[in-house]
Amino acid sequence: MLSIDGGRLVGTLDTLAGIGAIEGGGCARLALSDDDKAGRDLVVGWMRALGLAVSIDAIGNVVGLRAGREALPPVMTGSHIDTVRTGGRYDGNYGVLAGLEVVRALNAAELTTRRPIAVAFFTNEEGARFQPDMMGSLVYAGGLGLNEAYAATDKDGVAVGDELRRIGYLGAATPGAIRPHAFVELHIEQGPILDEEKVRIGVVESVQGISWTEYTVTGVSNHAGTTPMRLRRDAGYLAASTNVFVRALAREMGGDQVGTVGALTLRPNLINVVPNRAVFTVDLRNTDEAQLEQAEARVAEHIAATARAERVEVEAKVLARFEPVTFDAGLVDRVEHHARALGLSTRRMPSGAGHDAQMMQRICPTAMIFVPSVAGLSHNVKEHTEAADLAAGAQVLANLLLELAEA
Amino acid sequence: MLSIDGGRLVGTLDTLAGIGAIEGGGCARLALSDDDKAGRDLVVGWMRALGLAVSIDAIGNVVGLRAGREALPPVMTGSHIDTVRTGGRYDGNYGVLAGLEVVRALNAAELTTRRPIAVAFFTNEEGARFQPDMMGSLVYAGGLGLNEAYAATDKDGVAVGDELRRIGYLGAATPGAIRPHAFVELHIEQGPILDEEKVRIGVVESVQGISWTEYTVTGVSNHAGTTPMRLRRDAGYLAASTNVFVRALAREMGGDQVGTVGALTLRPNLINVVPNRAVFTVDLRNTDEAQLEQAEARVAEHIAATARAERVEVEAKVLARFEPVTFDAGLVDRVEHHARALGLSTRRMPSGAGHDAQMMQRICPTAMIFVPSVAGLSHNVKEHTEAADLAAGAQVLANLLLELAEA
Repeated sequence: MLSIDGGRLVGTLDTLAGIGAIEGGGCARLALSDDDKAGRDLVVGWMRALGLAVSIDAIGNVVGLRAGREALPPVMTGSHIDTVRTGGRYDGNYGVLAGLEVVRALNAAELTTRRPIAVAFFTNEEGARFQPDMMGSLVYAGGLGLNEAYAATDKDGVAVGDELRRIGYLGAATPGAIRPHAFVELHIEQGPILDEEKVRIGVVESVQGISWTEYTVTGVSNHAGTTPMRLRRDAGYLAASTNVFVRALAREMGGDQVGTVGALTLRPNLINVVPNRAVFTVDLRNTDEAQLEQAEARVAEHIAATARAERVEVEAKVLARFEPVTFDAGLVDRVEHHARALGLSTRRMPSGAGHDAQMMQRICPTAMIFVPSVAGLSHNVKEHTEAADLAAGAQVLANLLLELAEA
Repeated sequence: MLSIDGGRLVGTLDTLAGIGAIEGGGCARLALSDDDKAGRDLVVGWMRALGLAVSIDAIGNVVGLRAGREALPPVMTGSHIDTVRTGGRYDGNYGVLAGLEVVRALNAAELTTRRPIAVAFFTNEEGARFQPDMMGSLVYAGGLGLNEAYAATDKDGVAVGDELRRIGYLGAATPGAIRPHAFVELHIEQGPILDEEKVRIGVVESVQGISWTEYTVTGVSNHAGTTPMRLRRDAGYLAASTNVFVRALAREMGGDQVGTVGALTLRPNLINVVPNRAVFTVDLRNTDEAQLEQAEARVAEHIAATARAERVEVEAKVLARFEPVTFDAGLVDRVEHHARALGLSTRRMPSGAGHDAQMMQRICPTAMIFVPSVAGLSHNVKEHTEAADLAAGAQVLANLLLELAEA
């Protein structure tokens, strides 16, 4: 058996977490920022030190390739190293650095596999700065054109293409040119289920569909003391009413349905002025496409009816829309097999979060391995996974990659 | 009769509006900002040019005094010249510049009144940058100590005392040292009633009580996709739920009750993260103190119950609390008398907005005169009052001041 060194893996996670470190133990390495560049440089350095052939593609995805005995399509693993503004140190980074740990173990064992093994990290998975999220893997899988991706701008109007060039990661390789034999992504759950149920390994069968919409509401700003309630055209009220509606809708629909109003900005944002502008987002997710469409329709109806009653204008902009994804059944079975063979408890589950793996499923058989997140915390500086779980997940990954690379 | 020149008055309003001018015809002269200083310098210059003895007190209130035949307490008029961030050109400014227009007319007529006539502008009436609002007149009337006022800070932590010193308006006079015989404030209505009913002059009998509270909510930030609804501790949800509750409560209570959530800031304010922090304000107003207290209690109950259900922490901070104020009945009658004597239609009404006059009522007989605001718009760049109405209101003010100064 190829043996993973859990301590060494945690060491690399801690080192990477030192870049863009924020109070409380978390990280802020927004995609294509200076800190993202510093993180990329560190990981690329590690790849080269491990003898991997590094290629950087035109959307900034980085693939480190370890040659096999035969020139076949590689078995690929990987994830992302960008974070949200107040993120943890495991989300994404764990899957990338566990891949490098597998390479390190292969090197130590002086093993050459039949197929090459590739470790990748994809650009802007989080979507915290540029939409859509999972941008790099979406481009890699052919779902988004380069020019469209380059044109995406952040809140300050800065474009992806310009930032890629600025930080030196607009590479020469064609995205997707390295077409994998199979793709496996190891990731923290980012939810509470494994931790609550004391299960060691999540066998991920599918990914929830995601619907992100940004609403811009235009009302009339007026004096908060002198404007009778019946005459108000309050942009902030529509945002508030939608937040309350989304909560009630998710409760009513039950099942996997979740909904969140995470971002909201009011103008003029003063205590004694009725807001004349509100910009807010609605994030809806479900593993069932029909139910997700139903949730979208219900939110749209609520917003239209409330806008009529309040006499405000609303513009909706879809920031991201992905249908639910089902992973390769055979590969999912092998995840379960290798976890059980190691004596680890397992649970089949959907992923509530979006992941690069869902894009890779478009071009090759794909699966995911989850490890527990303590208290389900993620996108939070307190995000944590126990070292023993980090090592167990990496060991399942190693055994699966080895099997796939020899097949 | 002392004749007001409406064109001249509008000219001074337009000139002052050129300082801190913003797109759409409005003004941004936040209290104690560089633009506020420039506005103050202009008005003080006009006062001196009109021969007024200018005194600046320790909270930056400015009083221009026109000597009378006898050394009696002056009849005072005035208002404020600070604005909200996206304010109009009439709110406050009109009352101050109409006072100067009365002085201009007195000078032209070479009239000396028995009592002195004073024109004042008070510091930070709006409360858009520093709380509480009506700060200068509150200090003038003895309701707030200088040190407490100096310590108030804006969002960037900049203190009133430091800003007063920086812009050169921390004066030597003791606030309230000039104790008026009577105070009359001329102001735009800032609401839709006079405009809707085509009434020329509002005879203001009272001012609504004001309750301003800022709530800081602490929840847990977590992944918007993987966190089941039942496990969420969403700070933004409490803010939204309170906004919706305040609207329903105002409708249920009816009468004069109004309620507004004007300011709200979420953290981390990202589309796919449950907010762990929300800071928002609630503005409640009623002309009846018992009803205002009832509204406050109902909002507090709603917030406490929602915070328990959502398992978030809430801190409440009272930013301003003023009981409803009733103006001097005799003086209110004289406002009505002079308007009718000029053939102007009148309506008795409460003020929905807070005004410096309500502070002055604590130390002398006080009344207010309202003129229509087109469409009720105020705290808005589109704030407008017709020139004929501006002239009519100033004429009522002139006639009333003359009567009071001769009494």
